[in-house]
Amino acid sequence: MNFINTIEKKRDGEKLSRAEIRDFITRYVSGEIPDYQVSALLMAIYLRGCDEEETFELTMAMAESGDMVDLSGIPGIKVDKHSTGGVGDKVTIIAAPIVAACGVPVAKMSGRGLGFTGGTLDKLESIPGFVVGLKEEEFITQVKEIGCAVIGQTKSVAPADKLLYALRDVTATVGCVPLIASSIMSKKIASGSNAIVMEVTYGTGAFMKDEESAKALARTMNDIGKRANLKMEAVITNMNEPLGYAVGNSLEIIEAIEALKGNMAPDVMEVIAEVTADMIIAGEKAKDSETAVNMAEEALRSGKALEVLRKMIEKQHGDPRVIDDYDLFPKARVKKEVKAAEDGYLRVTSCAGIGECVKILGGGRITKEQEIDLSVGLIMKVKDREKVNKGDVICEIYASDEKDAANAERQYLDSVKISEKEGHWHPLIYTLND
Amino acid sequence: MNFINTIEKKRDGEKLSRAEIRDFITRYVSGEIPDYQVSALLMAIYLRGCDEEETFELTMAMAESGDMVDLSGIPGIKVDKHSTGGVGDKVTIIAAPIVAACGVPVAKMSGRGLGFTGGTLDKLESIPGFVVGLKEEEFITQVKEIGCAVIGQTKSVAPADKLLYALRDVTATVGCVPLIASSIMSKKIASGSNAIVMEVTYGTGAFMKDEESAKALARTMNDIGKRANLKMEAVITNMNEPLGYAVGNSLEIIEAIEALKGNMAPDVMEVIAEVTADMIIAGEKAKDSETAVNMAEEALRSGKALEVLRKMIEKQHGDPRVIDDYDLFPKARVKKEVKAAEDGYLRVTSCAGIGECVKILGGGRITKEQEIDLSVGLIMKVKDREKVNKGDVICEIYASDEKDAANAERQYLDSVKISEKEGHWHPLIYTLND
Repeated sequence: MNFINTIEKKRDGEKLSRAEIRDFITRYVSGEIPDYQVSALLMAIYLRGCDEEETFELTMAMAESGDMVDLSGIPGIKVDKHSTGGVGDKVTIIAAPIVAACGVPVAKMSGRGLGFTGGTLDKLESIPGFVVGLKEEEFITQVKEIGCAVIGQTKSVAPADKLLYALRDVTATVGCVPLIASSIMSKKIASGSNAIVMEVTYGTGAFMKDEESAKALARTMNDIGKRANLKMEAVITNMNEPLGYAVGNSLEIIEAIEALKGNMAPDVMEVIAEVTADMIIAGEKAKDSETAVNMAEEALRSGKALEVLRKMIEKQHGDPRVIDDYDLFPKARVKKEVKAAEDGYLRVTSCAGIGECVKILGGGRITKEQEIDLSVGLIMKVKDREKVNKGDVICEIYASDEKDAANAERQYLDSVKISEKEGHWHPLIYTLND
Repeated sequence: MNFINTIEKKRDGEKLSRAEIRDFITRYVSGEIPDYQVSALLMAIYLRGCDEEETFELTMAMAESGDMVDLSGIPGIKVDKHSTGGVGDKVTIIAAPIVAACGVPVAKMSGRGLGFTGGTLDKLESIPGFVVGLKEEEFITQVKEIGCAVIGQTKSVAPADKLLYALRDVTATVGCVPLIASSIMSKKIASGSNAIVMEVTYGTGAFMKDEESAKALARTMNDIGKRANLKMEAVITNMNEPLGYAVGNSLEIIEAIEALKGNMAPDVMEVIAEVTADMIIAGEKAKDSETAVNMAEEALRSGKALEVLRKMIEKQHGDPRVIDDYDLFPKARVKKEVKAAEDGYLRVTSCAGIGECVKILGGGRITKEQEIDLSVGLIMKVKDREKVNKGDVICEIYASDEKDAANAERQYLDSVKISEKEGHWHPLIYTLND
């Protein structure tokens, strides 16, 4: 097969066949097709699009480009969740133990943070000793024993995605629904769960800037999953301000532990209720939303969910005492209070801007290989649309030195404003049917 | 400057600035920007286009990426011509001597054939001893002394074009007006002439398939040339059948010599009259078309044009005796006559198909480095729309062996048909004002 013909077809807006897509992925992974041809195809896909069938075939070719994790040894319906990323998004760390406590096995492979978004693996690694690099057998055994494991993706999962992702990153072909959807879903499909609950974020703190594009991405992933015989559920969440109060690795883990102890920020609670109910229903442990929400509440109230987290930390070589003693987390040297300069209502003007504070503090990655400081971050004391008086503390910054703290403060103040009027209210959650 | 931003802008249909285009070309030639980023930009240009200003800036950046030939040592207005390629196109070899004989200096850099099209350099090299690789000083001295030289482009002319052309070839980004126009014009501008007459071909034997796209290309090149302060003239020619009778390197040179002796096929004469008149007027040796045509006719009738060719062959180390003795050309071993299978009118259905015959015979290039057989080719005995009777010889094939001859015959018969009705007549020449 001549790859130039494949590029030509997509360039001219024609549909690629399954054979052409398979040939592309197979020969790209084997090194036969050079990057400079693939980037021309990626740009043609960016500008011409892919239909549902092409996107599905691309996803499957990428999923099957490496090892397919076999979770059949774990009884029951394995339910995964995925977030398209955001600022302060600690949903996985709270939801996975709740759902596991309700009897749904969660065998989850997570990612690291990049740019202004955080990553679940980095957050978990702020727990002293915690290991995210389990072997497949250990991973499976742990899920069987305690119902829950969260690890990093092994290199052998969807290698085509790794190559394509790196190339898209440097050829201005990242923000394209078929490419984003196939990238995410190829990894999910290769990871072996039977059901996936997608948390698709939009807003100033997400890659999708508006609700409509988030819905388009959710629909595409939904379609791919269904074609691959997975149960799919999607939640569209507004990421125009950070989720919860804490942003930064250890600070978010502490907020997650508090949540599992019953102290949950209202916005976190709203998302957790929706996501855990969807996961419990997908795992066939409840038939309707009301039952599922009740089960999740009971898992929290009884302390069972917190117990799952404790066991997961233990199993993954972390220090479980962190649950009761937050002083065991890495600690930032400097704490700085950011104060309101006037009276009014707080407005978050750039959620990504708040994420950038963590990067400035050394807690976010600019390149994938970078070492990060897990102790730094910030805690919002006033959320979007809340009233403040001049001099009120609106945010606490945790930094390794005064200079970083001052820079992060400046960045924070550039990302919010205090206005006379209360901002408009926007729903936090949509589903695909809204 | 971050090249990813440049790709993004073009991807989103925005206009690139002069600085962005210069940065792209300079850093691509220096090896700083990798092919895989450039091919993404090329695809974005292919699908989003470039406006006149961007196309001009791209052309100038490419022209100035290497040496700019300085022809100022040659007195008078130096007039170049360029053809976008075709089958049997021997116009340069006839027109250059005529125009030089009329006092217009012609310092021409030509190309080689590729695919189904022939190239002037290959044709000239069928003259025993002929050298196309002159040094710049030799080239200029020759034009000063005899008014005419045709050489190959030196490596140092427009290196950016060479890199981009090679990349476009393997990334399905060849057929795009701004990229074609900037590729041609960058070389022409770097070659140093003051005026250019463009022969833009269209039809089944050209890269542009219809008159409209040929006109679009001609207009774009015209605009670039005028912005670069060159005199520009464009002739749009129909390449739905080969020009003249001969197709193949030495066979075309013989046809060109015959033409300079006064024996010119009607279609060749039509194009030569237009192109030479345009060149003579551009060189300010005549004010109007009638005077220019008369001058060209006189250069032919007096034998002065043929004398220029003879001197050019001598100067470029070729054997000038070929002009009087065609047996000195490389000779094909096998001659095969192709006969009409029925009565009717000949129709050329694929001019490129006839060009392919020469490739089958070993006289055309598949890759740029390939050695070719300069003796092989074909002579059309019946042209499009002419009446034939069953058994008439419609074509003579010159091959190195019987097998090639039989394959070329089959290819020829696939490229023409004999139909009951005479085909529609189409004009051979348009100008941009038609």
